[in-house]
Amino acid sequence: MELPPPYAELVKKEIEKFCKELSRTPAELYEPMRYMASMEGKKIRPAMLLIACKAFRGNLRDALPAALAIELFHNFTLIHDDIMDNAPLRRNRPSVHVKWNNNIALLSGDALMIKAYEYLAKTPPAKVHPIQELFTETALKVCEGQQLDMNYEKEKNVAVSDYLKMIGLKTAALFSASLQMGAMIAMASDKDIKRMKIFGENVGLLFQLQDDVLDVFGQQQKVGKQTGGDIVRNKKTFLLLKALELAKGSTRKELQNLLGNNMLPDEEKVRLVKSIYERVDVLHHARKQMELFRNRAQTAIKPLKSTEIKILLRLTDNLMSREI
Amino acid sequence: MELPPPYAELVKKEIEKFCKELSRTPAELYEPMRYMASMEGKKIRPAMLLIACKAFRGNLRDALPAALAIELFHNFTLIHDDIMDNAPLRRNRPSVHVKWNNNIALLSGDALMIKAYEYLAKTPPAKVHPIQELFTETALKVCEGQQLDMNYEKEKNVAVSDYLKMIGLKTAALFSASLQMGAMIAMASDKDIKRMKIFGENVGLLFQLQDDVLDVFGQQQKVGKQTGGDIVRNKKTFLLLKALELAKGSTRKELQNLLGNNMLPDEEKVRLVKSIYERVDVLHHARKQMELFRNRAQTAIKPLKSTEIKILLRLTDNLMSREI
Repeated sequence: MELPPPYAELVKKEIEKFCKELSRTPAELYEPMRYMASMEGKKIRPAMLLIACKAFRGNLRDALPAALAIELFHNFTLIHDDIMDNAPLRRNRPSVHVKWNNNIALLSGDALMIKAYEYLAKTPPAKVHPIQELFTETALKVCEGQQLDMNYEKEKNVAVSDYLKMIGLKTAALFSASLQMGAMIAMASDKDIKRMKIFGENVGLLFQLQDDVLDVFGQQQKVGKQTGGDIVRNKKTFLLLKALELAKGSTRKELQNLLGNNMLPDEEKVRLVKSIYERVDVLHHARKQMELFRNRAQTAIKPLKSTEIKILLRLTDNLMSREI
Repeated sequence: MELPPPYAELVKKEIEKFCKELSRTPAELYEPMRYMASMEGKKIRPAMLLIACKAFRGNLRDALPAALAIELFHNFTLIHDDIMDNAPLRRNRPSVHVKWNNNIALLSGDALMIKAYEYLAKTPPAKVHPIQELFTETALKVCEGQQLDMNYEKEKNVAVSDYLKMIGLKTAALFSASLQMGAMIAMASDKDIKRMKIFGENVGLLFQLQDDVLDVFGQQQKVGKQTGGDIVRNKKTFLLLKALELAKGSTRKELQNLLGNNMLPDEEKVRLVKSIYERVDVLHHARKQMELFRNRAQTAIKPLKSTEIKILLRLTDNLMSREI
């Protein structure tokens, strides 16, 4: 999914400036922060914040600190999640805890979160307080979502609805907050802020389902992390939970046996689980669910007419037509 | 060191209220936060914040959110430090990462830091911005100090002056910030805020040296953590670095051999290092250094005359007459 140039570019420039500030000691603290912040990435959350700001005729300069804060916070969660999930790769490069070690990843993640709050506080005074409130509320939701995600790895019976609730917290809340913040900084009406909230929630859910799909059916080079990693770790994704719902009889038993089998080589496990996914046509169901989120997102903002709203509508369409 | 009743009691009441708010799901996230926040402890940092506020005739109610934020931030650092140091005990109870696991400790620590920012934002609007700025600056210093501390565990030549710089960041910065915040919330003059800053820095250094001494010469029951833990982990404390400076000839060689010896049972190692500490009379030198910090702290605030300043002066004296 490509974002139109001015927004992602603006964010990248802010990140570059931020990275320059990190030439400090101790290097073991600041270098991993720079490594993470300067990784290639779509910068989709902060770019959406800026687009939302522009959609309501806000000044992008006022929104840049919050946009950077959102991206730094996101980077913090990636560093800590990679420790917790023991994930070796992030955007095709070694995760921070692999390149350095767990302690350094833990601490530099902490420092990134503090930096996020530092930038957030640079938001113009008229709006800084509600922005901070929303940010903090969202940050806690993200932690709750991550905890539920870890819980689900151990639980036997997780419903698709539990999963959707979890990604609502872990992923969608930050999308939603980004879009709301952009509108808030532009002094949009409460009604319009609400529209961005609903749009963001649904785009976040859509984005996560796409991520689940790409983890299994994407190409490692494009996705930037170990393909099939979710399957190897028995991660309760939409695909797995839906497949468990769909599979009957011997197929269901086969899938459950695969989940309990620790002896199988990773590649073999991925191949076998994938073949079941294809047999029950779980992709079709994922697509249905994604369409639902896409439609909800689009319905929320369609009454608003502007170039930026058109950009947002197109983005949601792009999230559907992923490359696999 | 006992704090006069109203201050520590006020903090404890705030913590109790905070803990009640944590009856939320997922319990795996919120229960460890409550466990940590409700541990026995002197609440010295937030209590000092309140005393500083009162010293300049501020309203304690205005200072309570910041006091709670300081304590929650401190708890966050304890949870994460215990993971990094692999410390089994905290205040005589299992550390969070031992009672639960590393992932839960990591995430509930993150959530505590977010909660700290949530409470900080409840500071009255007239002062919230500079308070947040100081808090963020301090939080980064604490991370820098922790990183230096970890670096020093691996470095061969660490000078006593490096160590003092490190604890200036890791420990003293938060004391100093607490005292400054109290004064800031009370609308004290810049000159008086500066006095509290200097007082806090020196009290923090003093506090850390006392902690180093208690780790070796204290009783586990009173200290609340594994006695001699610093020695077992070859932690570069004031005592070790000063002893390395003081020890000559065969004593120095003996100490260095002990540091490189991984085969020795923990208790034996603690006993032998301790005997060298006694031989070179490192406690005498620690005491000299502590007196220096005590005097600097007292000099900074002596010109101010009030009941609360007297309390602070007495506190620094109490930090000298530790029980071992």
